[in-house]
Amino acid sequence: MSEDDKKLPVKRYLLDMSTCEHGGQLDKASEELDIAESDILDFSSCLNPIGNPFNYEGSGLDIENLRNIAAAKLEQYPDNRYIELRSAAAAFLGKGIAYANIVPGNGTCELLRLILECTLEEGEKVIVPLPCPLEYHHSCRTFGTVPQKMALDEMLRIPKRTIERSKLIFFSNPNNPAGKLASREEMREFASKCAEHQTLLIVDESFIELSDPAQSVADLALDNDYLIVLRSVTNAFSMPGIRFSYGIASKAMADRLNSARLSWNIGALTESVATGVLSMEGGPESSYLQRSREFISKEREYIAGRISALYGFKVLESSANYILVDMDGHFMDSERFVDRFSKHGVLIRECSDFFGGEKRYFRLSVRSREDFEKLIGNLDDVYAESSREAAREQLEETIEHPEKTVSSRGTCSYYPCHFQGQDCTFCFCPFYACEDEKTGGFWIDSATGGKVWSCENCTLLHQPKTAKKILDVLMDEGDTDENILKAWREVIKPLL
Amino acid sequence: MSEDDKKLPVKRYLLDMSTCEHGGQLDKASEELDIAESDILDFSSCLNPIGNPFNYEGSGLDIENLRNIAAAKLEQYPDNRYIELRSAAAAFLGKGIAYANIVPGNGTCELLRLILECTLEEGEKVIVPLPCPLEYHHSCRTFGTVPQKMALDEMLRIPKRTIERSKLIFFSNPNNPAGKLASREEMREFASKCAEHQTLLIVDESFIELSDPAQSVADLALDNDYLIVLRSVTNAFSMPGIRFSYGIASKAMADRLNSARLSWNIGALTESVATGVLSMEGGPESSYLQRSREFISKEREYIAGRISALYGFKVLESSANYILVDMDGHFMDSERFVDRFSKHGVLIRECSDFFGGEKRYFRLSVRSREDFEKLIGNLDDVYAESSREAAREQLEETIEHPEKTVSSRGTCSYYPCHFQGQDCTFCFCPFYACEDEKTGGFWIDSATGGKVWSCENCTLLHQPKTAKKILDVLMDEGDTDENILKAWREVIKPLL
Repeated sequence: MSEDDKKLPVKRYLLDMSTCEHGGQLDKASEELDIAESDILDFSSCLNPIGNPFNYEGSGLDIENLRNIAAAKLEQYPDNRYIELRSAAAAFLGKGIAYANIVPGNGTCELLRLILECTLEEGEKVIVPLPCPLEYHHSCRTFGTVPQKMALDEMLRIPKRTIERSKLIFFSNPNNPAGKLASREEMREFASKCAEHQTLLIVDESFIELSDPAQSVADLALDNDYLIVLRSVTNAFSMPGIRFSYGIASKAMADRLNSARLSWNIGALTESVATGVLSMEGGPESSYLQRSREFISKEREYIAGRISALYGFKVLESSANYILVDMDGHFMDSERFVDRFSKHGVLIRECSDFFGGEKRYFRLSVRSREDFEKLIGNLDDVYAESSREAAREQLEETIEHPEKTVSSRGTCSYYPCHFQGQDCTFCFCPFYACEDEKTGGFWIDSATGGKVWSCENCTLLHQPKTAKKILDVLMDEGDTDENILKAWREVIKPLL
Repeated sequence: MSEDDKKLPVKRYLLDMSTCEHGGQLDKASEELDIAESDILDFSSCLNPIGNPFNYEGSGLDIENLRNIAAAKLEQYPDNRYIELRSAAAAFLGKGIAYANIVPGNGTCELLRLILECTLEEGEKVIVPLPCPLEYHHSCRTFGTVPQKMALDEMLRIPKRTIERSKLIFFSNPNNPAGKLASREEMREFASKCAEHQTLLIVDESFIELSDPAQSVADLALDNDYLIVLRSVTNAFSMPGIRFSYGIASKAMADRLNSARLSWNIGALTESVATGVLSMEGGPESSYLQRSREFISKEREYIAGRISALYGFKVLESSANYILVDMDGHFMDSERFVDRFSKHGVLIRECSDFFGGEKRYFRLSVRSREDFEKLIGNLDDVYAESSREAAREQLEETIEHPEKTVSSRGTCSYYPCHFQGQDCTFCFCPFYACEDEKTGGFWIDSATGGKVWSCENCTLLHQPKTAKKILDVLMDEGDTDENILKAWREVIKPLL
């Protein structure tokens, strides 16, 4: 932040705030990678994988209808009371929820902002789960509060004293990004505890239609002024092009929120489309949503099983339309992994923003089997490229700082990966993958279905004299591709 | 507010806030009047009267295109940076304004909210013009501040001490609802004065494309952190069904506002449509907008002239696509007038909310000549009905409280409207319009082109004895239509 920026007429806690990053940035990826958006495989956003109901036979909606709505609604002001839309949302939820309990929002972000605007004073205590969407943090920061993180597994057991001291608690159910779903009974008990201590509980159920809507606590908000439940149409019905979410609250709270709500926050076209999908016969038990859940459940199990079997990935148990993968202990962090994947036109959600910066997890949304196989098909290449990239970086570091070169890594948890007394100057081989079987290297079948070059039986690089010779060549001549080839010819080749 | 409401977990100043009313409520009117929306004539909203550019030949846009966009954009996340959209807005404005100066908003309301969220602390002083949109007040109240009103004509001459003590000043140019346009030079000087005292000036130019865009000060915000200019696509291009406005600010201020802005506040469809219209060849000087201004200017002069000649209406000078009419001194207030009109399926904007509650003004938007003639065609009926309605109300009051009945109104500024010593029990005639020329009444040509029943020469009702007899009948028997007819037969008829 420059000195000039410090003088801007904005609240001091907004001076160094940055925008919130999200998944689904196809436009940005397309631009950076120079690939058409339609050629990008997006596993980073969490939309319903069977597509929107306008294209689903049996939904009673069709895309022609949508085209006509667009033309007809352009010249019409929306109804700022949103009677039809709110009534459709109430009917969709059932269980005694009425029009008067619904607060319409231009996306979940707007609802969060509205609720905080109406309730939170600067510096008041807010609790959010770890992990949770950065959006929760971002909204709180807009009002001058840095929320306190609490491990997801601890959330439902927060001590009463902590609840008492908090103004607001966020809960995401199923959790985003972990996919863990708390039961209705657990949530009911937690909501009562919060109400007892006059602490407002916001339960974000953005993905619950695609998980298990029976666990929803939306109806419990009707007679609890301290509970607000959020639902999203964007995710459940796979319509990110229109923005619509809604909150469920007691009549009195919904009334206050609607009074502070922006006039016409939902355009007439969005109003019309959202009313249409929420009025689908069967609501949460419509054939469209039932089919969605069946698809998700089946494919989630499949991809969780496949991913678990590869490269030591650990998949967390999920009840949602996405899985969270832990890549702790890998030679690369989640940022490099996701970044390399994106260069293949495959978007995966890197999760450090959900985890307060720790670059260890990625989130994969459930998509069709075919798309998933394409992702898997890129995995070996991503690994090979990442290894080469890591080798190159280490080489540069070694050449730049030969004095720091370690000849044997007493502190490395993998030492000795080949033999006692091995030289570790080159942890990653600058010649990978040389594809020369005389080195001892060989092709193996990959679990992903392809072939992978294994260096398991090659120890050439770890002989102290050899390592020294290669380093000398590269330090004298630079680490260009040409000189790496020269080092291969002059140092390795004679040994084969 | 109930005792229970007082305990709600919301900020205390939001407990009794109500929603903001607006013009253009066709849905509400249609429902209340049981008239199809398409049969309602809407003079209450202020959209471009020539319609949206998708239907305008020569705009390069067509409605088929719009239909396709709708279907294509449904499954696509918008670009949260809104690069194309913001670049289109910048190019539309020209004068060195760049992408980085633009803050996209889901309608002007959202921009106002965002700016206040980033700058205003509870209780800080804000100045708004009188008259101005209620939305300015509503936004400030959401942040715990009741703005101070200052007469529009005084605004540009606010004393320096007052500016110094204010955090924020709102200005609407051209003024909504008065239509008065301050020149670029006046605004430049005012903006400098505000910046000098570190007071943020928000200039709402929502209607300037339809007035005189050369008076805009959008480009002056580039090197002034204390000036933010707002523009609306909704009004200028007559597209209330999609919500899009944008703010223009210095790069540093736009950057802070964009950081605090909601993620994806504009849907992909809106993004696409707004980018399209803002990219129209010629920008503010496109054939579409030039034609719009010519039409507005010509029709505004016509309707202002016609309305001025009728019933003593006073039309304020306007440079916008609407006129403000003062009906001070009429026997009915603006609320009754507008309400009666709505029963004829004609919506007019009652303006008491712009004027802090004074029911004296209405705003009429410029529409086609044909629509305007329909409005005029209803005017005599509205007057006759309002007279009858007023008569009836006064009659009820007289019967309810005969002790308060005044036989001559010494305090009435119209007294004596007929003759010295007249009885004023019936200020409005319960028999209007009797259409019996023997009373002295007669038909006159109305300035609106129709016929109107004049009571100028009938004094029957103001003879003390006659008034007493009529009152007796109505008090004994009740003021039903039947008894009014009976009073006519028994008291008036014999006198003719």
